[in-house]
Amino acid sequence: MGRIVVEVMPKPEILDPQGKAVAGALPRLGLTGFTSVRQGKRFELEVEGEVDDAALEQARRAAETLLSNPVIEDVVRVTAVDGES
Amino acid sequence: MGRIVVEVMPKPEILDPQGKAVAGALPRLGLTGFTSVRQGKRFELEVEGEVDDAALEQARRAAETLLSNPVIEDVVRVTAVDGES
Repeated sequence: MGRIVVEVMPKPEILDPQGKAVAGALPRLGLTGFTSVRQGKRFELEVEGEVDDAALEQARRAAETLLSNPVIEDVVRVTAVDGES
Repeated sequence: MGRIVVEVMPKPEILDPQGKAVAGALPRLGLTGFTSVRQGKRFELEVEGEVDDAALEQARRAAETLLSNPVIEDVVRVTAVDGES
């Protein structure tokens, strides 16, 4: 069984309140090394059999239409992964 | 300026209603090649200067404590990235 990972992030010019909340909480945990945080989404799509070009093409279409909102988000990566991760 | 990416996914045994909703919507868009979908989170943490071992260690601590809930989520990856992606 193959797996395709789709990564989506808010566009740089878009306010990201979730990321801001995380960035504000980090110093309270003593984690002071970070200057900013942005939060996006990660999808794992399972396909039957191997990941081939057709599956990757379908995943790219899914990423652009359903998994991201192109007005406010960028699709960062669409990649096949084998086994874990 | 360095960047660390943290990827978090719901544990396999945890129900994932967002992923299920996506999986249900894909066939309605004509994208029928997928057997299941899971939705997780992707964080980008910016650090001043290069990403060194200390920054990665802080990012791992952030991932385990603030960015994921270890009862229901797994930290899939904590990786330094250069420039884009």
